[in-house]
Amino acid sequence: MLKQINGGVCAAKGFSANGIHCGIRKNRTKRDLALIFSEIPATAAAVYTQNLVKGAPLTVTKNNISNGVAQAVICNSGNANTCNANGIEIAEQMCELVSGKMGIDKSDVIVASTGVIGQPLEIEPIANGMDELVAGLGNNNDFACEAIMTTDTRQKDIAFEFEVGGVSCKIGGIAKGSGMIHPNMATMLVFVTTDCAISADMLQKALSNDILTSFNMVSVDGDTSTNDMVSVMANGMANNAIIDSEGADFDAFCEALHGVTSYLCKMIAGDGEGATKLLECKVSGAVDDVNARIIAKSVICSSLFKAAMFGADANWGRVLCAIGYSGADVDVNAVDVSFVSAKGGITVCVNGAGIPFSEEKAKDILLQKEIQIVIKVGDGVGKAIAWGCDLTYDYVKINGDYRT
Amino acid sequence: MLKQINGGVCAAKGFSANGIHCGIRKNRTKRDLALIFSEIPATAAAVYTQNLVKGAPLTVTKNNISNGVAQAVICNSGNANTCNANGIEIAEQMCELVSGKMGIDKSDVIVASTGVIGQPLEIEPIANGMDELVAGLGNNNDFACEAIMTTDTRQKDIAFEFEVGGVSCKIGGIAKGSGMIHPNMATMLVFVTTDCAISADMLQKALSNDILTSFNMVSVDGDTSTNDMVSVMANGMANNAIIDSEGADFDAFCEALHGVTSYLCKMIAGDGEGATKLLECKVSGAVDDVNARIIAKSVICSSLFKAAMFGADANWGRVLCAIGYSGADVDVNAVDVSFVSAKGGITVCVNGAGIPFSEEKAKDILLQKEIQIVIKVGDGVGKAIAWGCDLTYDYVKINGDYRT
Repeated sequence: MLKQINGGVCAAKGFSANGIHCGIRKNRTKRDLALIFSEIPATAAAVYTQNLVKGAPLTVTKNNISNGVAQAVICNSGNANTCNANGIEIAEQMCELVSGKMGIDKSDVIVASTGVIGQPLEIEPIANGMDELVAGLGNNNDFACEAIMTTDTRQKDIAFEFEVGGVSCKIGGIAKGSGMIHPNMATMLVFVTTDCAISADMLQKALSNDILTSFNMVSVDGDTSTNDMVSVMANGMANNAIIDSEGADFDAFCEALHGVTSYLCKMIAGDGEGATKLLECKVSGAVDDVNARIIAKSVICSSLFKAAMFGADANWGRVLCAIGYSGADVDVNAVDVSFVSAKGGITVCVNGAGIPFSEEKAKDILLQKEIQIVIKVGDGVGKAIAWGCDLTYDYVKINGDYRT
Repeated sequence: MLKQINGGVCAAKGFSANGIHCGIRKNRTKRDLALIFSEIPATAAAVYTQNLVKGAPLTVTKNNISNGVAQAVICNSGNANTCNANGIEIAEQMCELVSGKMGIDKSDVIVASTGVIGQPLEIEPIANGMDELVAGLGNNNDFACEAIMTTDTRQKDIAFEFEVGGVSCKIGGIAKGSGMIHPNMATMLVFVTTDCAISADMLQKALSNDILTSFNMVSVDGDTSTNDMVSVMANGMANNAIIDSEGADFDAFCEALHGVTSYLCKMIAGDGEGATKLLECKVSGAVDDVNARIIAKSVICSSLFKAAMFGADANWGRVLCAIGYSGADVDVNAVDVSFVSAKGGITVCVNGAGIPFSEEKAKDILLQKEIQIVIKVGDGVGKAIAWGCDLTYDYVKINGDYRT
């Protein structure tokens, strides 16, 4: 049983956070440097983008947490520190700055950067901002949230209380992600903190399994970023019996983790660049879960379908079309499609062919802010959920001249 | 040597065409039914969409030309005749109408439909229009061009004269294609006619090979249509010695065919829905051609990159990003990127990292209507060209409410 609580990454015992404007962004009204800190060293796990072009911070982080331990996260926005000759050097300097100020090992720092690719990141603003950043460490989840945002329009955070072996634990997370979101491994920046005691191996196992049905099922525009990762720090301060194998305790932790990740997925999809609607595509009846995921992703990624949703147009032909080219093992003559929202549901396609329906009712349903596309593709056991958003004028506007 | 000539699908000896408004579209100013006719039966070849959801006309056409013979093409726009319970029946009736009026076998008809999916296609307007359609058969390439257009803004046709064994032959083609264009086999409607004598086997071989470097390398929006095909009819009336094996004559034919197909590819990409620019991505130095094609397609398909081109923004980081997630075997640290247009060229990335460049000059280059993205990924022999377009406000507008 999960109970939603406040506090984001500061909800779990022993974690504090802060976010400041240090000057990487010219816009002084937007914070650009975040720090998350655990009082004691935590077990750590992460997953990284599958893009061959990887941001320098990811390389440094991967190396730093190879021992399964981390105590702090430092993250800037406004510059991705990617495709720069001195990228590794700068990322390591960021870790050293945290190390120096906090008195922790520099290899216990998770470092991340997000923003434009291919422009050198200056260390000076970060170095100059460290005193202010550290001085403000506290229950400042909101400042950290803001500092990692790029084109995001909304703060993305969540926290839950849950029980492991009768002991109350807390888990919370913050996310950044709006454009360049595509289902292929850890495609955004997400930082999760928990006071649950869990071994590094089991933490990595929980995370690697979770992303298959969480962050890998989100798409905003089909582009897989170079810089994205999901990291979890678990500092054990809840004092539960450490989870070091599968079983009821591990299941309880996984459920709590999925509560955090799936909530953040929806927030990211609903805040897709230029988005006016959150789309949730629910597929059932597939041969297996893998095929169900392929189908759900293909629909949620179709530019044509996304544009139709922007126009509140019940163009189910585009759903069928996207299923047809998905590459999934599927009988297109057994596909049923319905649209569901707060205004009710309407079935528009049965056994791969259109059925008469009220265009007026369909419009009414599709004008809502959250739309479910419910697809039954047969009698199999495979099911999946994918999240996305509509394609709008503002997506083009935001991305037509991002650098200026 | 190819010499460009007029006439489109009517350029080759023995071919005539027409296009009328029969009433499938409500808009009376736009023709919606096309006929292409050869005086004598022609050898025929075609390639079809790889979407599992296939338009009924494709099924009928595939069956009709399984013997390698065709004499006419009938094609309507305004309705795709796909995902309808009576689709096959209607497509066969269209063939029967041509058969009855022209006195040819109904199995010698290539039938195609393009437009909205999942709305029943009425046969009456087509049946009622047949007299007018047939009466106007002649050198009316332009009418046929218009009749197959959907959201296309420009007529797409081309013809060339070429020599086979010292004999002058002609080849011409028309195309429809604007949205739902994606590199995966025959992703648009293209009808090619030639008076060259070539066996059905060699014609199919020439076409199947050609699309790997022509229509499979075009992308407008990443959606693979359910209805698209490329067909060629060769009636032999040029009286060259029939091409029935590989050799110089076959090579000459393939060159002429590629002249037609690559020209139409550029026209389709440049007229992508809402497009303001034609993008041509040239990749060299890849491990092999297959990897070069994967890279070129990935760049041309990136929504983020396409939006940057709309904004004339030299955001080469998005090029590298798209190469990185392409799945190609590539060393991202050996990638050079330049942008080239009528205003000159500018190199913006060397060995996977940015170099200083004049933003002003880059803007000047990228404000042109035709942009080449020149990418060198190493010292390999693999090369490829892909065509696409920018992502604009109008793409969203066109697809936000296509059905109304």
